[in-house]
This record gives sequence, structure tokens and C-alpha cells, in this order.
Amino acid sequence: MHSQALLIEELRRITGGATVWSRAELGARDPGFDDRNFGAAALVRPRDTAGVAALVGFYAASGIELVPQGGRTGLAGGAATTREQIICDLGAMDRIEEIDPLARVAIVQAGTPLAVLQEAARAYGLDPGIDLAARGSCSIGGMISTNAGGIMAFRNGTMRHRLLGLEAVLPDGRVFGDLTRVLKTSAGYDLKQLFVGAEGTLGIVTRAAIRLDAMNGASATALVGISDAASAQRIAGHFLGQAATSLQAAEIMWRPFVSAMRRMLDYPPDLLPLDAPCLLVLELGADTQDAARAALENGLAEIWEKAGISDGLVATSLEQARMIWRLREETEMIERMHDHPPSFDVSVPAGMLDAYVARIENGLEALDAAWQPYVFGHLADGNLHISLNADGPLAPARYLAVEDVLYDGLRAAGGSFSAEHGVGLDKRGAYERHADPVKQDLARALKMLIDPQGLLNPGKIISRRRSSS
Amino acid sequence: MHSQALLIEELRRITGGATVWSRAELGARDPGFDDRNFGAAALVRPRDTAGVAALVGFYAASGIELVPQGGRTGLAGGAATTREQIICDLGAMDRIEEIDPLARVAIVQAGTPLAVLQEAARAYGLDPGIDLAARGSCSIGGMISTNAGGIMAFRNGTMRHRLLGLEAVLPDGRVFGDLTRVLKTSAGYDLKQLFVGAEGTLGIVTRAAIRLDAMNGASATALVGISDAASAQRIAGHFLGQAATSLQAAEIMWRPFVSAMRRMLDYPPDLLPLDAPCLLVLELGADTQDAARAALENGLAEIWEKAGISDGLVATSLEQARMIWRLREETEMIERMHDHPPSFDVSVPAGMLDAYVARIENGLEALDAAWQPYVFGHLADGNLHISLNADGPLAPARYLAVEDVLYDGLRAAGGSFSAEHGVGLDKRGAYERHADPVKQDLARALKMLIDPQGLLNPGKIISRRRSSS
Repeated sequence: MHSQALLIEELRRITGGATVWSRAELGARDPGFDDRNFGAAALVRPRDTAGVAALVGFYAASGIELVPQGGRTGLAGGAATTREQIICDLGAMDRIEEIDPLARVAIVQAGTPLAVLQEAARAYGLDPGIDLAARGSCSIGGMISTNAGGIMAFRNGTMRHRLLGLEAVLPDGRVFGDLTRVLKTSAGYDLKQLFVGAEGTLGIVTRAAIRLDAMNGASATALVGISDAASAQRIAGHFLGQAATSLQAAEIMWRPFVSAMRRMLDYPPDLLPLDAPCLLVLELGADTQDAARAALENGLAEIWEKAGISDGLVATSLEQARMIWRLREETEMIERMHDHPPSFDVSVPAGMLDAYVARIENGLEALDAAWQPYVFGHLADGNLHISLNADGPLAPARYLAVEDVLYDGLRAAGGSFSAEHGVGLDKRGAYERHADPVKQDLARALKMLIDPQGLLNPGKIISRRRSSS
Repeated sequence: MHSQALLIEELRRITGGATVWSRAELGARDPGFDDRNFGAAALVRPRDTAGVAALVGFYAASGIELVPQGGRTGLAGGAATTREQIICDLGAMDRIEEIDPLARVAIVQAGTPLAVLQEAARAYGLDPGIDLAARGSCSIGGMISTNAGGIMAFRNGTMRHRLLGLEAVLPDGRVFGDLTRVLKTSAGYDLKQLFVGAEGTLGIVTRAAIRLDAMNGASATALVGISDAASAQRIAGHFLGQAATSLQAAEIMWRPFVSAMRRMLDYPPDLLPLDAPCLLVLELGADTQDAARAALENGLAEIWEKAGISDGLVATSLEQARMIWRLREETEMIERMHDHPPSFDVSVPAGMLDAYVARIENGLEALDAAWQPYVFGHLADGNLHISLNADGPLAPARYLAVEDVLYDGLRAAGGSFSAEHGVGLDKRGAYERHADPVKQDLARALKMLIDPQGLLNPGKIISRRRSSS
């Protein structure tokens, strides 16, 4: 057993003088979204890949477990720690090493926040093509490790599709170096894919080559009231069918979410038309902002009757657009209304969105007459975020019953019980009950192959090996 | 040892009456691009996933090796066979099981040719977003197994990015079933990615869920003469920066390729302006064909001086556009000029295209004063196809020397020695000499984990295990 002082000294020595926080210091710091993030013996913040590799290599096979952390914005307990674990914090690896404007590629260290990359790319008229509400805090490495999706995934794909190359430290301390900068490679198994969505259980992502897109023209924002998701899909489909504009966001919110948000944001009654059963936020790109606004107005007029639009507003100022987006994005308001409200993140196939929402409303009400879900999310890829109007955590059996309401039948229909938040600790039960058994077998074998000692973020996604087996 | 008659009977019995071809029948059939494809003991064509699973399960651990085959258009020997192997042909699984126009998803059997999917999707105003010259023959399963890219990859990604879900038969006969229909899933290791680009060595892909995009407007074609790839990149960049149009293809051809093609296609001297050192084929989409033509004309005029354009033609008829595209796509002409010309397929980072072409021209000339490469390919993702003006196959040492000229330094620069053709048998030497050793170690361990008996497409990508080890 290490004493704290010896451990701190050891960590500094291994990593060549990296910043180290003791257990006491961790207790005094902000653990991010999840209180369990800072329950570890210590945190160490290596300055480069060699530092991460030295750390991992030193503890390999020693029984000391490591938990990699990025922006600590994860929502599934993927960065949670236990008392004897050591946190490998990527926060000191936060540099953009290179932006190549001709090749439209950025070489980025894993601890870089998304917003920093977005801003650096913007200086070249480029954009990483991925965006989410936690942009200011979430790190590129964390986004790779959960295969983050966000607002523009329906157009540009998820993090997996924005990733050209990747460097990661394996559980034995070796460096897997594949900083490919080209899109096309079919040169043997593309093993960098293993680390995407693996939540740090197979290796610690240290650097990445990210694809950038040309930023074209300008965009405009609209808020549309409709009766259901089917209407919203007709509207999104109308704009997706236009060649001269590009739909950049189609975010849907159901009434209970909108009502809660307007109250918490203290929006005056006539600020925005918010009375419909469903609201759709559209962001449309075109050559100029005037062209984008005109295309939104004309497009909505064309489809008004057919889509059953009850209300619509094209923002005429940046401030008005910001008000619309705050309604969708400042979801920490829900956490202010309820203490740790149980939250979920599903992908629902396009044809069953309305039926799904009706089914879970009924199912949750059957469990508790006071329960109602706040539902909002990304219309065009069917990714719904769901929070319960209740304090958490729920008792295990109760939580299980809620999960069954939300997840039953999703896989058979081609959906997913975790769209972009990962499995971590909190959805491991769902994983074990709702993921394909053959896939689970293969995943366990893969974890055993690459991390036979189970020292890298153990217990996340896959349960620890049973000691009796 | 089976006699042929017993083997044929056994194969029919296992697969529930599937079509079976004997060795003699194989000898009388067209083996596709590669003569080695039909050197096997027999070919069996299961009708469904259960038939494939029964076949694989029956021979698991028995020492009988299986080689999966799709459209047999592969260019790296990935479908080559030896005398005792059995071909599992996916040609009878060629149905599009479903197209969901709302979700924009197709559920496709692995043997379906790309062109069949393209045509079926077009009836709904949709498109699979991937296209390549072998569209009429190449199968969806084969495209997944080589992570095919083609003409539109720079916009829409490679096959990996078009794939939502996948079903595959594992080497032990179990079915890995992950026919997810949604884009966003972060529900544990995304193991379907393992089968993408694995060339049938980890499992036999049987069905897939493919993403479809809305087909917008119309397009127009231009042929532009420039002095080098840097000029071509300025032109492509100009069109990529426009919001109201979408660049759908940017194909580059160097003069020796163009000269050979115009001669073989017997194009009269004044048919097309073909005299520049480099030619660029552009396909631009817009709301209407007139708008696309006008945007091409205006865009080229705007960038004419800056990009150093020497010649330019916007096609005014479909026939003229077809003439331009034949020049780029009918590359079997090169095979008529030379007997099995050695061919290569590299990804070159954007900044070094011209230097790369100059370097390989010099390097090849140094090996043989008569050697000159035909170079053509996909400008916007740096994917160059290269054929040598010589008969093949070359003597092994000679081939190695050519590979060194073509591949040295590519990985360090972030490129790839195999962009979209895979490794198969023919690039295994390159893989062993040019792929990251840590990646090769992991790949070998993964193959051992999933196919411990080495019965699925053995020797492709990864060498057979040495019997002495």
C-alpha cells in the first residue's frame, strides 16, 4: 500500500514532473458533472504521450487501476472512480498541434476542448463538423471515447466519421500510432476504430487527426410549432430536399420540456411562440444570411399546410436566434429543478418517434402517476434525450423498471439504448440486458485480449471479471 | 480427403440445397478480375444467412478453409483461392430486403450489386452516397469488406461511413447480428466496425443497413486542363466553398493516362481539350441542370487566372458528359494495353500530391528507363490509382523495388499504401513492411482471437501462422 505522499512522489517521478493532485486536493476541486469522478487516490496530468505511456507502463500488471478523464462532462459514469484508482487526466494535453488548411485536417491533443478546435478552425474558414451543447468543456479525446454525435451528426456523421487518425496508449504501455491524415485507407484491420466508443477501456487516446470542412456562407434559425414528430420530419425532409441550402440542425422538443425550460429561463409569455405540442428548431445554411432567412420563410410557407404547422418564427436577429437555442441547450436547468434526475439517451428509428414517445409517457405514468418525461433531441437522426421529472438516483429495482419502459423493443427495431452518452457504469445493466449476447461475448473477449489485467477504466461498459470464474 | 462428388453432395446437404459448382465447373466459368478466384475445390452459393452459418459451422475447426466472394472485382487478390479451399459465394443473397424512405435506410443482402441498390434507391429520390466505376458488378458485402471509397468519398465518407448496421457469420458459425438502423449508437464496443475492411477474414458479411441520402437537384460536368494537382486543388477548393452548389466529383488524370485512354477509346483529336499536363473532371450539383452548368461556367471563370487553367469545357449534353467520364472510368483499357499491369492504390496527403507524382516518376524511371506510371484518381481525398506501363506480374524483387518507390514515407506523412483496394494477398508484403508494427501485432492477435483455426479467408491481409511457432 502506498502512503499518499509516496504515491504523489512516485507519480511525479514516473511522468517527469507532471501535475499531481492528492486525494485531499481532489476533494476540494470541482469533479465536473459526476461526483464520483474525483473519488480516486490521486490525479496525474501528463504533459505528453510519453508521459501517459510511462504512467500506464509503470502500473501495467501491478494491480493499480487507471481511469482516463477528459472534460468530465460524461453522463453515464464513464469517468467515475473508486478509492484506490488513479486518474490519468488529459487536461495538460490541450494543444492543437497543427491545422492544415489545404488538406482540411487538424492534429489535436486529446485534452483539447471542442470549442477551442472550433475556434482555431474558424480562422481558416473551416469547421470540425461536429457540435454539441457541452462544446466549451468536452474534450476531443472524450468525444472519441464516447463516439459523440451532437447536433450535426445527421449531416456529417458522429465522431467516428470525423476521425482520420488516432494515437492511443495501450494497457501495456505501448503506443498505437495511426495518425493517418487521409480519408481513404483499407490497409488491414482499421484498429483505430476499436478506441472509438470504448470509453478508455482499451487504451487512452492521446492525439487525433480530425477532418475539417469548409464553412460555407451563413445560416438562419427558425422555431416552428407542430403537433408531432411526423410533422417535424415532413419539414426537415422538405429542407433536406433542397440543393441550394443545407440543413444544419433540426432539434425537436416536446411540450413538457419546453414548459419547464421557459419557466426556468424566465422567458416572458410573448417572447417566442411556444404553445404547440412539439417545437422544432431549424438552422438552415445558404450563401448569405438574407438568403438563408428567405429560404426558411419560403420553405416553411410551402410546407405550412402539408406539415400542419401551427406557429412559426424565423429569427430576425442574432439575439432572437440565441433565445431559441438557449431553450434547447441550457438543459442544466432540468438539473436545477430536480436533484440528479434520471436521464436517458436513446436512438429511435425514424418511423416510430411519435409512437415511442407516447409509449414511454404511458409506461412511466403506469409506474408512477406523477412521472412525466422531458423529451428533446436531434430529430433527423432520431436521437432523443429523456429526463424524468423526479429526483435521483432511483432505487435499483425502480431504475430497472424505468429502463425497461425506455429500452424494450428498441434493439429489435434497429434503435439503440445509448445513442451518444456511452455505457459507463450507469448503463451497464441496460447493456447486459439489451445488447446482443454474441456482441457481448466478443466484447468481453476483446477486453481480455487487449487488457488482460483489467487495469484500464475497469468495470466500465463490461463488468469486472467474476473472481470465481 | 473428399472426392469431388461426395463434397458436392455434402455442400448441398449442409446448405439445404444451395447451388454448388464443382472444380470442373469452376474451370469453365469466368473468375472475374483475378484468375486465382476460381482455383478452389468447389463453390457454394447459400440462399440466406442460415445457409452461410450452416456452411461455416459445419467446417469450423475441421481444417476446411472457406473463401467468401462477392462481385469478384477486387484488385488485391482478396478472393484468391487454393486447391483445397471452398468458395462461399454471396451471389444468391442479392435482394434489397427493404427501403425505408422516411428513415433513409436500405436493408441489403451482401451479394447485391451497388448499381442495383443505386437504382432501387433512386425510385425514392434517394442515393447510397457512394459510387465507383465497378458499380455494376461489385457487391455491397465486398464493398464493406474492403471499406470501398470511390468518387464521392470526399463528401460522404467511405463505406464505413455509409454503414449503419451489419450482420455477419463468425468463424465458429454464430451470427453477429447488429442491423442497427440509426446513425448514433454508443452502446458498447461497436464491433461491426471489425468487419469493415477485414476482407472476410473475421466473418462473412451477410446483410447490411446502408444509409441513404436525399438526391437533390441535378448536376453538370466539366473538364479542365491545368498544369498540376495544386491548381486542381485550388479549383476544387473554390467550388467546395460555395453554399448553393455541391461538388460531387473531382477526378484528376495525368497526361500519360489521358494519352493512353484517348488512343484506346479512339477519340478524334478535337473531341475534347486533352492537351494539358493534368486534367480535372468536375461534377457539380445544383437545383437544376442549367443552374449547375451556369455555376460551373461562372466558377471556372472566377478562378481561371488564379488557378492557371489552360483549357476548360462545361459539357452541354449528356453525351458530352459521358465522353468525359468514359475517359476516367474505362480503365480496363489499360489492361488491354498491357498484360496484368502492376497496379497500385495509394492515399497521398493533400499538400504533397505533385511532389509525390514527380518522385514516383523519377523513381520508376531509375528502375527501368522505359517505365512510366499511369496516374489518375480522386483529387479531393488524395486517392491516386497508379498502373505501370509494363506487363505483370513482375519478378518478386522487382515488384518490391516498385513498392518501395511508391510507399516509402507515405505512412510517416499520414497517407496509406492501400486506399480502397485492401491488402488481400498482393499487398501483404507492403503491409508487413509499411504498416505500424504495433498495429500488426494487434491485428494478428485479433485474428487469432476470432478465428483461432484460421479457416476464414486464411492468408489474406495477415500471413498464415508459421507452423514452427
